[in-house]
Amino acid sequence: MNIYFTFDPRPDLKEDLVKSFPDQEFVFQNRIDDGLKNADIVVTYGEDLTEKHVDEAEHLQWIMVCSAGLEKMPLKEIAEKGIVVSNVRGIHKTPMAESVLAHLLSYHRSLPWIYEKQKQQEWSRKHKSTEIQGTTALILGPGAIGGEIGRLLQAFGVKTIGCNRSGHTAAYMDEMVDFANLESVLPQVDTVISVLPSTEETQYLLKENHFKAMKDTALFMNFGRGDLVETDVLKRALEQKEIAYAVCDVFEDEPLPEDHPFWTMDNITVSPHISSQSSRYLERSMEIFKPNLEKWLKGKQDVTNKIDPLKGY
Amino acid sequence: MNIYFTFDPRPDLKEDLVKSFPDQEFVFQNRIDDGLKNADIVVTYGEDLTEKHVDEAEHLQWIMVCSAGLEKMPLKEIAEKGIVVSNVRGIHKTPMAESVLAHLLSYHRSLPWIYEKQKQQEWSRKHKSTEIQGTTALILGPGAIGGEIGRLLQAFGVKTIGCNRSGHTAAYMDEMVDFANLESVLPQVDTVISVLPSTEETQYLLKENHFKAMKDTALFMNFGRGDLVETDVLKRALEQKEIAYAVCDVFEDEPLPEDHPFWTMDNITVSPHISSQSSRYLERSMEIFKPNLEKWLKGKQDVTNKIDPLKGY
Repeated sequence: MNIYFTFDPRPDLKEDLVKSFPDQEFVFQNRIDDGLKNADIVVTYGEDLTEKHVDEAEHLQWIMVCSAGLEKMPLKEIAEKGIVVSNVRGIHKTPMAESVLAHLLSYHRSLPWIYEKQKQQEWSRKHKSTEIQGTTALILGPGAIGGEIGRLLQAFGVKTIGCNRSGHTAAYMDEMVDFANLESVLPQVDTVISVLPSTEETQYLLKENHFKAMKDTALFMNFGRGDLVETDVLKRALEQKEIAYAVCDVFEDEPLPEDHPFWTMDNITVSPHISSQSSRYLERSMEIFKPNLEKWLKGKQDVTNKIDPLKGY
Repeated sequence: MNIYFTFDPRPDLKEDLVKSFPDQEFVFQNRIDDGLKNADIVVTYGEDLTEKHVDEAEHLQWIMVCSAGLEKMPLKEIAEKGIVVSNVRGIHKTPMAESVLAHLLSYHRSLPWIYEKQKQQEWSRKHKSTEIQGTTALILGPGAIGGEIGRLLQAFGVKTIGCNRSGHTAAYMDEMVDFANLESVLPQVDTVISVLPSTEETQYLLKENHFKAMKDTALFMNFGRGDLVETDVLKRALEQKEIAYAVCDVFEDEPLPEDHPFWTMDNITVSPHISSQSSRYLERSMEIFKPNLEKWLKGKQDVTNKIDPLKGY
């Protein structure tokens, strides 16, 4: 088999692959070139494959995508050619949950204030810190990532309410509510955390009335997709102090435009879509890829994290 | 009974006390004055009582200290007069554990960098974040606070090694080591967290050799007492990059002197001894005081968190 990487992994990860599969032909490139024509399997971050590539790759049977989002893939062409697609679903779970907890705890335990006072070289103890214990969090999207966030929140003594389309039970959620009844639970929630993907049902799910229904002490955290809420709706809610603070890792327009008011407003943290970043990312991707490749070489196409290209998940 | 507060609690907490104990005489002062002479019970933060006060307070039978440290109390005189002392041991557990986790996660998930980039209004994704999952933490002082930190660390998938005088098992510690063998475990530890009180055995427990034995990627967190390590020993270890970073909530001299190099060094966070602060502090103190007062009024002197004034714990 010819296995074509459209990126160049860390040396130790390459060595390990070559050693584990000595009979296979690995090609590690930092781009897509003519070599794609010979590829049986392509390993990619998913942002580089075009319709033309899919068309030209005559032998291609399986695309392993080392990311969770498939939005930029030519999924229709892939489906038509019957190419198997799998991804690294769940791989973001740990870094994202750690980032969400980091920001939530930092906010309650006054870390931005501590960093500021250090810069001013001022020993001051006047700031009042709060706690997350005993608070209530709403998790929009209680799947693999949301569940991991819920598990950690529960360890801190935070009550978790999960919110999804169906309202059906989800792991590590003390209660559930469906999208349709979202507004009704907001008045009791201290932290609203979204890790929702962008789908027809989640686009602009949050509207003015939702922010008005939240506590004025509420913290809103968007770590899913930027089109969950119109930028102007969030901006107004922050300006009107309908909520106390927001931490956003995602935005309607990314990168956030240079002159956007969010950069300088004092009740929002702008995080440049990096909450899923981890030095262990590729290592974990390979932990998913290797057993899948073993399966594949035995002729089994039911690889883990197989995706329906037409649905995109 | 005359119950004398040397501080003035929040109105709702005062009301609740008066309502819960309508037959008792409460005095809420923001200082110690002549009224102390009539006091049967004194409620204090522990920093204001002198030998003279104890001598003059003829009726005094019980001192409720709303803090954990008793270092500033005239303990000898109190013991001689047979006055019962109790404190709020364990009350710092939640805010301190949340602060330790906040700083640990903030460090790994690049929060100081995110805050800095926002100030520069720069959308950059170049920073590499790491994770706490899969790391190893050494907890110096695995008691009530250290155990709570251990419990949370374990939830994040961090291996915990407890270190105390005896090396005997402690809750939420995967392994234990005694003070004498501390150095031997340091090479395998990613995070060293101290919540040790200041005692003869813990004063200057950490020396040059300990920092030399730590990984050069190690994070050192002191949330116990500043005399665990000489300032100059820690400073040298940071300057020589023997460890990667330190977060200190306590210092040998507090406040940290205005011209101290720690304020401007780029591998230490200076926190002004506020990790135990919480908006819920006094509320929790009263949750300990009220059942104790009920006991006391029934003639029972075995109050919760009773302290041996001669030992100081």
